[in-house]
Amino acid sequence: MNDRYPTAATQSRGDFRSDNVARVEPSIMAALLAANTGTQPPYGADEYSTLLDARFSALFEAPCRVFPVATGTAANALALAACLRSYGGVFCHEGAHIRLSEGGAVTAFSAGGSLLPLKGEGGMFDARELAAGFDAAGIGNTQRAQPDAVSVTQVTERGRVYAPAAIAGIGAFAREKGLHFHMDGARFANALARLGCGPAEITTKLGVDILSFGATKNGAMSADAIVVFKPELVEPLRFLLRRAGQTWSKMRFAAAQLLAYVEDGLWLKLAAQANANATGLSQGLAAIPGVELLEQVDANIVFARLPPVTIDRMIERNFHFYRRAPDTIRLVCRYDAPVEAIDGLLEAARG
Amino acid sequence: MNDRYPTAATQSRGDFRSDNVARVEPSIMAALLAANTGTQPPYGADEYSTLLDARFSALFEAPCRVFPVATGTAANALALAACLRSYGGVFCHEGAHIRLSEGGAVTAFSAGGSLLPLKGEGGMFDARELAAGFDAAGIGNTQRAQPDAVSVTQVTERGRVYAPAAIAGIGAFAREKGLHFHMDGARFANALARLGCGPAEITTKLGVDILSFGATKNGAMSADAIVVFKPELVEPLRFLLRRAGQTWSKMRFAAAQLLAYVEDGLWLKLAAQANANATGLSQGLAAIPGVELLEQVDANIVFARLPPVTIDRMIERNFHFYRRAPDTIRLVCRYDAPVEAIDGLLEAARG
Amino acid sequence: MNDRYPTAATQSRGDFRSDNVARVEPSIMAALLAANTGTQPPYGADEYSTLLDARFSALFEAPCRVFPVATGTAANALALAACLRSYGGVFCHEGAHIRLSEGGAVTAFSAGGSLLPLKGEGGMFDARELAAGFDAAGIGNTQRAQPDAVSVTQVTERGRVYAPAAIAGIGAFAREKGLHFHMDGARFANALARLGCGPAEITTKLGVDILSFGATKNGAMSADAIVVFKPELVEPLRFLLRRAGQTWSKMRFAAAQLLAYVEDGLWLKLAAQANANATGLSQGLAAIPGVELLEQVDANIVFARLPPVTIDRMIERNFHFYRRAPDTIRLVCRYDAPVEAIDGLLEAARG
Amino acid sequence: MNDRYPTAATQSRGDFRSDNVARVEPSIMAALLAANTGTQPPYGADEYSTLLDARFSALFEAPCRVFPVATGTAANALALAACLRSYGGVFCHEGAHIRLSEGGAVTAFSAGGSLLPLKGEGGMFDARELAAGFDAAGIGNTQRAQPDAVSVTQVTERGRVYAPAAIAGIGAFAREKGLHFHMDGARFANALARLGCGPAEITTKLGVDILSFGATKNGAMSADAIVVFKPELVEPLRFLLRRAGQTWSKMRFAAAQLLAYVEDGLWLKLAAQANANATGLSQGLAAIPGVELLEQVDANIVFARLPPVTIDRMIERNFHFYRRAPDTIRLVCRYDAPVEAIDGLLEAARG
Repeated sequence: MNDRYPTAATQSRGDFRSDNVARVEPSIMAALLAANTGTQPPYGADEYSTLLDARFSALFEAPCRVFPVATGTAANALALAACLRSYGGVFCHEGAHIRLSEGGAVTAFSAGGSLLPLKGEGGMFDARELAAGFDAAGIGNTQRAQPDAVSVTQVTERGRVYAPAAIAGIGAFAREKGLHFHMDGARFANALARLGCGPAEITTKLGVDILSFGATKNGAMSADAIVVFKPELVEPLRFLLRRAGQTWSKMRFAAAQLLAYVEDGLWLKLAAQANANATGLSQGLAAIPGVELLEQVDANIVFARLPPVTIDRMIERNFHFYRRAPDTIRLVCRYDAPVEAIDGLLEAARG
Repeated sequence: MNDRYPTAATQSRGDFRSDNVARVEPSIMAALLAANTGTQPPYGADEYSTLLDARFSALFEAPCRVFPVATGTAANALALAACLRSYGGVFCHEGAHIRLSEGGAVTAFSAGGSLLPLKGEGGMFDARELAAGFDAAGIGNTQRAQPDAVSVTQVTERGRVYAPAAIAGIGAFAREKGLHFHMDGARFANALARLGCGPAEITTKLGVDILSFGATKNGAMSADAIVVFKPELVEPLRFLLRRAGQTWSKMRFAAAQLLAYVEDGLWLKLAAQANANATGLSQGLAAIPGVELLEQVDANIVFARLPPVTIDRMIERNFHFYRRAPDTIRLVCRYDAPVEAIDGLLEAARG
Repeated sequence: MNDRYPTAATQSRGDFRSDNVARVEPSIMAALLAANTGTQPPYGADEYSTLLDARFSALFEAPCRVFPVATGTAANALALAACLRSYGGVFCHEGAHIRLSEGGAVTAFSAGGSLLPLKGEGGMFDARELAAGFDAAGIGNTQRAQPDAVSVTQVTERGRVYAPAAIAGIGAFAREKGLHFHMDGARFANALARLGCGPAEITTKLGVDILSFGATKNGAMSADAIVVFKPELVEPLRFLLRRAGQTWSKMRFAAAQLLAYVEDGLWLKLAAQANANATGLSQGLAAIPGVELLEQVDANIVFARLPPVTIDRMIERNFHFYRRAPDTIRLVCRYDAPVEAIDGLLEAARG
Repeated sequence: MNDRYPTAATQSRGDFRSDNVARVEPSIMAALLAANTGTQPPYGADEYSTLLDARFSALFEAPCRVFPVATGTAANALALAACLRSYGGVFCHEGAHIRLSEGGAVTAFSAGGSLLPLKGEGGMFDARELAAGFDAAGIGNTQRAQPDAVSVTQVTERGRVYAPAAIAGIGAFAREKGLHFHMDGARFANALARLGCGPAEITTKLGVDILSFGATKNGAMSADAIVVFKPELVEPLRFLLRRAGQTWSKMRFAAAQLLAYVEDGLWLKLAAQANANATGLSQGLAAIPGVELLEQVDANIVFARLPPVTIDRMIERNFHFYRRAPDTIRLVCRYDAPVEAIDGLLEAARG
């Protein structure tokens, strides 16, 4: 059932495998308890879900619909399935999670849609690279998938954060060519925390049509969501969600999590803490001779090259992370990573 | 977002629309809190998920794998997708939820699989009706879907409970013909409570290969599960789940719900209470002149015919239920339906 | 490989199994020979294919695009796939070929689309039955397939021919509700021959948007076609055809068949002959005591009830047809059925 | 309708765009005429289709089933759909026709299957490259497509011919890992003509399980076929073919083409002529200063680099071919390319 992490390790001295190993933030748990009174109509007709649309429309400074789903894969694949014709395709980075790590979900839910890979540093591409991909795609050629959408990951799979200007460029190109613009925001809050701007500044104001809004990696229990800004995508999405088994009967408990998550800036506080944890960790690593950071640390993910024996030692000391090559590791800092874990890992790295 | 219940009504005097309007049972909520400590590996490699397999294998007196999913639709459609070839079909009752109420999910996840409807009283069919359907299916005829599976709903959509002998007959036929045997157990506990037998007595001992195990309608928050008894179905299911976006990252919180649900017979107590509520309600209704019960009340669902003016009055008095025709209603009793709600509804029915 | 006809019988005294057991009409074969000179660009860019659009636009008195395909199943399924959303459905008669005899092709090519069955005598439904189906379909209900199209079969599977007024009624309803209107014209010429009207009178003038144009059953070799009258359906169809492997490289040989087929009214002459054969056969049968015609014979298909021993005798005398029940047969008359075959069959039926 | 060749040009002085611009070889056309007598049961139950299995089983020195289809895309996609699970993948060259030029047909017919690209010179890969791909594929990882098959193109898209030893290596690896082994033989005869061996020497004796057998590019009208050597693939294929609308009713005319095609070595004579044409053309080109052959010419395809002005001149003189870049062209020689066309093209290339 578990592909990457064959051995469970609950007595870890520090778990940097992903931000999804974390606990539910206590105030989100409290919101679940508070929502557990009285009856509520199912499938999103409850009071909490109704509030959700209003709350997110205010946050994003544009009318939107919010559809909670169980996982980030569901959010991405169903959002894109609403955008793609069966012979359509979505431009994305060649290292995008939707292309490499979701078991073909976009293709399956779109009944044949293709991932059209673009290159670019740090898991990012820009409008120029997108334009080149578009020109090479073969518009009208029935032998080829036809571009319907473009998807960016914010924070990227390499831990980088797109600047608003880059997003604006992509958004302008998408609008010009009639492409839907999707953002995979599995770590959307971490990007906002980094950029110090409001959610609208990197989405609705720049042409994003549909957003995979991640909360699970940043303190929720099981509440990612699809946020739809473009009205024409709502109707197909409703049907795709039902068919996908993503329309929770007790939807109030998904909505309650998301409401608590954005209440009083909780999400941004948690993300800022996770980012700060990563900054501290990366600075500590960079100061160690023989250690090299492989990417600029914009958010809560650190890629580093270390001597294999050093990595072996970190593992022996019961630290957990994802080893991508004998000398390469990925460390993800969650909001509730204890100081001792980070200090301990640095100590182990130092020898 | 809500198909059947256009108006939310939180100040209902009694909500009989479905058992999914209920709260989470407090001890299940407590289990969520208890699971919220430390880190756990994601995607089902956590300690709770590991316990789940062992716990359910004991319950069902046979080795099994348990895969939590977000909804009953996901459980049914993915369980059956693991059973069906793309040109395969599943026998089910013509009124089955998988055929009428899940937006084509079985067909979508199986990439073309068909629902092969059978008739029968009370939402049930028996081995003879199944055999007739099989004989008429056109085995080997490429113009027709090829039978791969049979699915029964226990409790049925009409509120009836299959007797073990009926299940045994279907199981024997399925084994003889090489059909996978699926049970939609959205209200599995209610059936057990009615029959007074153990879970193995109506599943593993009678040839059931794969079970949609419902907990959400009976006190859980968002935890249905696919329970796989036939090992060959595990591998395809793992891939289908990931692709469907049903592999929760924080799976421990799904597992914790399910563990609490079956702990100390909680599930059976809750189901017994729901069934008793329905029995009381139906007896009260049956005693009212002009009211007719349309189905035997085996579990927690009541179908009744009443004069339209009576139904109008019940609605005016702020009771909620599903009106299927001017003179026909469905009432579902949940475990936590208050006595006053039931008494109030009866009073409204009396005039 | 053969589902219905387990035993080949080339020395048949009369073959009434289907009109597709016939030869290619000689002038169509001659057209293939004539097209076999010089080089031609592939995939429909040849001169013959170009002529086809113009020729059919004149025939149907409206601009259209013609896409030859290998089979009637391909024509129907791809035409409808261009009309349906993945959660869409097409109204059709419950006995329609697309629903019962094409191996789920519509559902497969539309990635989940549903067949929404309607009842009606003679394989026909009318606007009122369509309206009732539409009202019951659950528009907006995500649990149900959403109506996108309606399909009629002309000639129907029961050998009946829709009157123009009936088609007009369906077309008007389709337009009102925004449904695409598809006609399965596997035996389109036989319907025209019966009605004595031009092709536009039962298609373009009555709202038909897309037509499966059959020629194979009426003298061609392997040339059915999708004729598209509604421009918005052309683009998706082009992509679906390529993906389906229905875009012939040497398309000129498909186009040449279709051009010869409609040249100088050949198609109507062949169809009139097939219809006349069936009329003669059915009149002969009706005159035999104990024989009952089960449907009005509008075109070239005869359904009859005979004593089982009579049918046994016909089989013993080496006549071939499709026996649907011990006392029920279907006889299809092709354009080139010899007089002796028909007379011989009648003689065998008489005893 | 035509993607690559926007302008038809029937008065070409020489058409080197593809071998599918050719005529039907006269003896194949004669076979169509000869088959046009009497009635035949439909859908492959005819006498010609029956002969086909026996004839090909003899040719390939192993029992096989032959399923004619309309196009090479249909042959490839349906053959592979029979091999792939919905979450499966097929290894192929990164430049394979199935990956780049068939509109996503493999993915569509397999309901989600992936193309797993391998690199290699001349459109070929070897067992070592395949093994590396297999090792990197992530067996058991639900985030990734699972290898089910490997596909080679013989002749490759770059005009190269796999040596039997290379095929043997791939076949051995496939057998070891349980992968189905598919060969795209769109130009299978050209490969045989080059290698001078029998069909079994590069297929059945080396582990090929299923073959796309091309005849259309080498003299047939519309008759490619799937040849199945592995019995377990027959059953799914039958259903997939029907559903795909590839089960011709008048199948005898497909079978008759294929029987004539392999009669008395016709196919090998035609292929040898096409190869010889390409050899002559390529030798002529290579002798021209400033012209460079980009691939070894193993069969009937020539890739060449020429000065752009030279290419412009060839186009002005009304020669037709596919220009892949300003200075790069692909020339395909068909069996019936006239000497004057080849000489004329060389003359134009010389200036």
